[in-house]
Amino acid sequence: MMNEIISSTNITVHPTEESRIHEVDFNNLVFGKKFSDHMFEMKFSEGVWQEPVIKPFGTFEVTPASNVLHYGQAVFEGMKAFYVDENTVNIYRPETHHERFNHSCRRMCIPETSYETFIDALETLIRLDHQWVPKKNGTALYIRPFIFASDNLLAARSSDKFTYQIITSPVGAYYAEGFNPVSLTTPEKYVRAVVGGTGNVKTAGNYAASFLPAQKAKEKGFTQVLWLDAKEQKYIEEVGTMNIHFLIGDTLITPGLNGSILPGVTRRSVIALAKEWGYNVEERKISIDEVFEAYEDGSLKEVFGSGTAAVVSPVGLIEHNGKTIELDREKPGEFAQKCFDEITDIQYGRKEDQFGWVHPVSI
Amino acid sequence: MMNEIISSTNITVHPTEESRIHEVDFNNLVFGKKFSDHMFEMKFSEGVWQEPVIKPFGTFEVTPASNVLHYGQAVFEGMKAFYVDENTVNIYRPETHHERFNHSCRRMCIPETSYETFIDALETLIRLDHQWVPKKNGTALYIRPFIFASDNLLAARSSDKFTYQIITSPVGAYYAEGFNPVSLTTPEKYVRAVVGGTGNVKTAGNYAASFLPAQKAKEKGFTQVLWLDAKEQKYIEEVGTMNIHFLIGDTLITPGLNGSILPGVTRRSVIALAKEWGYNVEERKISIDEVFEAYEDGSLKEVFGSGTAAVVSPVGLIEHNGKTIELDREKPGEFAQKCFDEITDIQYGRKEDQFGWVHPVSI
Ligand SMILES: Cc1ncc(COP(=O)(O)O)c(C=O)c1O
Ligand SMILES: Cc1ncc(COP(=O)(O)O)c(C=O)c1O
Repeated sequence: MMNEIISSTNITVHPTEESRIHEVDFNNLVFGKKFSDHMFEMKFSEGVWQEPVIKPFGTFEVTPASNVLHYGQAVFEGMKAFYVDENTVNIYRPETHHERFNHSCRRMCIPETSYETFIDALETLIRLDHQWVPKKNGTALYIRPFIFASDNLLAARSSDKFTYQIITSPVGAYYAEGFNPVSLTTPEKYVRAVVGGTGNVKTAGNYAASFLPAQKAKEKGFTQVLWLDAKEQKYIEEVGTMNIHFLIGDTLITPGLNGSILPGVTRRSVIALAKEWGYNVEERKISIDEVFEAYEDGSLKEVFGSGTAAVVSPVGLIEHNGKTIELDREKPGEFAQKCFDEITDIQYGRKEDQFGWVHPVSI
Repeated sequence: MMNEIISSTNITVHPTEESRIHEVDFNNLVFGKKFSDHMFEMKFSEGVWQEPVIKPFGTFEVTPASNVLHYGQAVFEGMKAFYVDENTVNIYRPETHHERFNHSCRRMCIPETSYETFIDALETLIRLDHQWVPKKNGTALYIRPFIFASDNLLAARSSDKFTYQIITSPVGAYYAEGFNPVSLTTPEKYVRAVVGGTGNVKTAGNYAASFLPAQKAKEKGFTQVLWLDAKEQKYIEEVGTMNIHFLIGDTLITPGLNGSILPGVTRRSVIALAKEWGYNVEERKISIDEVFEAYEDGSLKEVFGSGTAAVVSPVGLIEHNGKTIELDREKPGEFAQKCFDEITDIQYGRKEDQFGWVHPVSI
């Protein structure tokens, strides 16, 4: 049966001879640990992307001189597909993710890829591995497209060869045990990104750079880092690996895309919903001082992060230079909850997709 | 005979059964392309560094979920060893390189390594592969120690497993065809690093981030990028992947280690020599405007980069916002030449090593 699945572009499919699905406990999914039977792969050499293939998920060989191990020339995306019913799986905003993927490629000197191949790869993978898409509410198939430099040369310059892969992984509900508002602290010495750097693209090095500050925040008892801008350590940029939003009075304020903030796909969804619902929406610089002032005068209603993993992540506490903001530490605010409900309803096909966000795949 | 080489700590040596040295044309060495017969490897797991081994250079397997491909948690060093005579090879400043290696590890949440194992690995590799150390003046054995995250989990957090490898590669003379002063331009939109980020450590992502600006500088006809500080785009930080020095009057001015500049080992050597020779030495902020003013009033005598690859790299031209500084475009200045001669004389054992920079290995 599997052999009947064919791609609409020209992806050669080598189906697995033996599924590993029995190894997975769908009631205890750990994020990013188990990978579906198949993966997509396409290599770049001689100045062009070569033939795409889908084949069994598996290891590959690298040499110690592999460019990516030394110079970090790599980009990735993180997205999800949702079980609707026995006939349909919804991919969430694949075009927007692919647009960002290419944007990341341009900044990192990695050759761009076509949306045609991307969406065909996703559809074909989902069809082949439809049994890996978990069914319970809150669960999803996490999709990880990525490209890395694969030259074997120790020269600190852009590679001539690249490997593009897409792997998928069933993931459990982020809020299986209910919402848990996070506590944030601003890092004392560290910054995530600066305008002119790579903060606005999804490249490997951004994440490694954030591990130490994240660890220090944890040691101080906070869940995550609230990132301030690198130049003045004054304006709020992101939270952990999410975008951030503030509901002050009836206005949703989201830090504007200044060049060092990652343009989140969920961020765009939240902003679109807020506009649709008639809120004032401002994308602009917002300083940590402004947030403290709004807290003191009582107009700060909600703070929450947004990202593919959690959809929304309510913030219960913010610490900055010894001062503290305390919001609801038990449950999300009304607005964050409404965003969560609306976005997940659209993702699981429970509500009309008026924005054209989901890409249904017949399985 | 090879089997007799044993390490002084506890490195297990698996010598190769067949040397690949006949594949190498020692008269046409391309940087970082051919690797010596042996490599060092040590893995970190269960919270400790495991048994170190030296084995034939070769490929290894990774899974598509390998942490380093996605999050860039990786550090490296770049250093050289020099052929002195049939009995001796000199490693240049291994302690200083190892100190920086550990400093990079700390910033990147990678477990530190001991100097004992490091130097033993280098000595053992050089003894095993002494025939790979090229003999001509200007040539060297390039040494690349590196550590990368090797967890197979798509979680954006520090890995629990790491792989530490050291590979070596014979390299030709950087100035085989004579010195060639470089031309520089300041990038319009891009920065290399910012205080609070990772610019002061040798981590993978810094290099990938610099590929696009380097490419743009080349397209405009310049050899390399002159990096300015990220906050004000005013103070000079580095040049390409080298540190930078200015001889203004009788003063050697080198940008101070502010937190976003890589502390170069060659930079330290240049500063030590300048002091030894009685120059005024200043490590401090130096703005691009100050350099232009010194050029206009005639006090700017020399500009040069410093790094392991080139030792010194004279700068012949600097372009910034349409204005140009033109220095000697044919040959290095007197001071840069003197640094080059002194450092290489010490490296090849032609001159007394008064600073204790070289670590001789009996082969
Ligand atoms: C640094 C960073 N910011 C923000 C986001 C949120 O982006 P998205 O909503 O597209 O998942 C992510 C996660 O993908 C991220 O890594
Ligand atoms: C960014 C950067 N700056 C400066 C240097 C010079 O350092 P070193 O003299 O230790 O080679 C290097 C090269 O190693 C580098 O990569």
